[in-house]
Amino acid sequence: MQVATLPTNPADVRQLIRADELIQPTAGIAPGHIQANLAILPRDAAFDFLLFCQRNPRPCPLLEVIEAGDTEPEIFAPGADIRTDIAKYRVFEHGEMTAEVSDIRDYWRDDLVSFLLGCSFSFESALITAGIKMRHIEKCINVSMFITNIETSPAGEFSGPMVVSMRPIPREQIVRAVQVTSRFPAVHGAPVHIGDPTAIGISDVTKPDLGDPAEFKDGEVPVFWACGVTPQAVAMNSKPPLMITHSPGYMFVTDKQDEDMAVI
Amino acid sequence: MQVATLPTNPADVRQLIRADELIQPTAGIAPGHIQANLAILPRDAAFDFLLFCQRNPRPCPLLEVIEAGDTEPEIFAPGADIRTDIAKYRVFEHGEMTAEVSDIRDYWRDDLVSFLLGCSFSFESALITAGIKMRHIEKCINVSMFITNIETSPAGEFSGPMVVSMRPIPREQIVRAVQVTSRFPAVHGAPVHIGDPTAIGISDVTKPDLGDPAEFKDGEVPVFWACGVTPQAVAMNSKPPLMITHSPGYMFVTDKQDEDMAVI
Repeated sequence: MQVATLPTNPADVRQLIRADELIQPTAGIAPGHIQANLAILPRDAAFDFLLFCQRNPRPCPLLEVIEAGDTEPEIFAPGADIRTDIAKYRVFEHGEMTAEVSDIRDYWRDDLVSFLLGCSFSFESALITAGIKMRHIEKCINVSMFITNIETSPAGEFSGPMVVSMRPIPREQIVRAVQVTSRFPAVHGAPVHIGDPTAIGISDVTKPDLGDPAEFKDGEVPVFWACGVTPQAVAMNSKPPLMITHSPGYMFVTDKQDEDMAVI
Repeated sequence: MQVATLPTNPADVRQLIRADELIQPTAGIAPGHIQANLAILPRDAAFDFLLFCQRNPRPCPLLEVIEAGDTEPEIFAPGADIRTDIAKYRVFEHGEMTAEVSDIRDYWRDDLVSFLLGCSFSFESALITAGIKMRHIEKCINVSMFITNIETSPAGEFSGPMVVSMRPIPREQIVRAVQVTSRFPAVHGAPVHIGDPTAIGISDVTKPDLGDPAEFKDGEVPVFWACGVTPQAVAMNSKPPLMITHSPGYMFVTDKQDEDMAVI
């Protein structure tokens, strides 16, 4: 069931989610607070995945790592339980999705390490504050995402191409968009590419590999940011025995505010 | 032996060091290039140490992690060998220093993971470029370092207080010092504290725990940055069976330039 008036406090939001009383995508919920991508892997794979994130900070901006067996994100959401406080999880075994559930306590093991990764909601909020419109948000559609020819730096068994999200930005606002997002390296940071899509292996910018197509107006240029889909795609490629993620759009709502992540 | 004219190219410097023809502290060598702290640990401890660095980016700014058994820093110094290209190494067993050597090939094992961490040389260079004098460099003495009451975020067996370095900065240059070092989060970044030493547990700013005392002139304020001694101190506290580091001042000279690390 959905509640009529959504709480704005992250802890209250998580409480409703934990009680299965709030099951909907989290965009726009608890505005101003950082939402996170989730990836859970067995400890055997955790060192290599942590190293992969360290080597690829733009697509894999690590917010917090919860040690093997622990379930509380002590830094970003003290008191929360990573097994119950996301509305929808996906369970993958050997690279195949085997379940979509609202609670992963039945799957929990003492060797599971949980990774919370930054998400584009935070920098989009900063862009909007700076007067740069996000058309996909206004139109309530998904951002366009593309698999590029930019190779990530591999780590152990993890490797693969970088996935990017694309937003059409008016030419006169591109400099500002770079400045605004540069302040937030912990949530993808500055663009990885501006302009010509073919330079990063995208043949048709109107046909995304994931998400919805974007409309371009006169004078708008495609601007590409590293996307949090990358680490999940890369992890999935390695077909780990068990991997658990959030379901797309159903993010983990943290207590921290977007501005807490600004480096300047 | 020391050579009369030092090469300015990092690869040439490393070649001399590898041949034991350059055995001296590396401050001022290959100017403009990033020098790194080294910590080598067995794979069993590597995940927790990597996590410790991820949780404490200011004292532990990771530049590169070389995977278990590998010896080449592919990103920061392709072609280099981490076992031979530092002039002096220290070997610690169960927390006790057992050797100081110019080559660690005899100690090498396939389960050793090497961590290269940012060093203050890079941000000092940026401060000097911005017109902010570094008195300890002008006087050819060590920077003052203090053990603070700021607790690091623990990870696994690694925990302990943050160590900071302190530089006296004229009051009118403090804002500029913050701006300049904020650009370089990968080499310790912005100060962790400005002014009153007692606020971070330092009872006498003229009596450092490590390094040399600093002289203060009228109108100068103590400014404190997180120090790369922290991760080594914390790792040592845990008394790992084997840990290898560079000897203080004998850093690893990389191919990258300081400016490559600027986030803006």
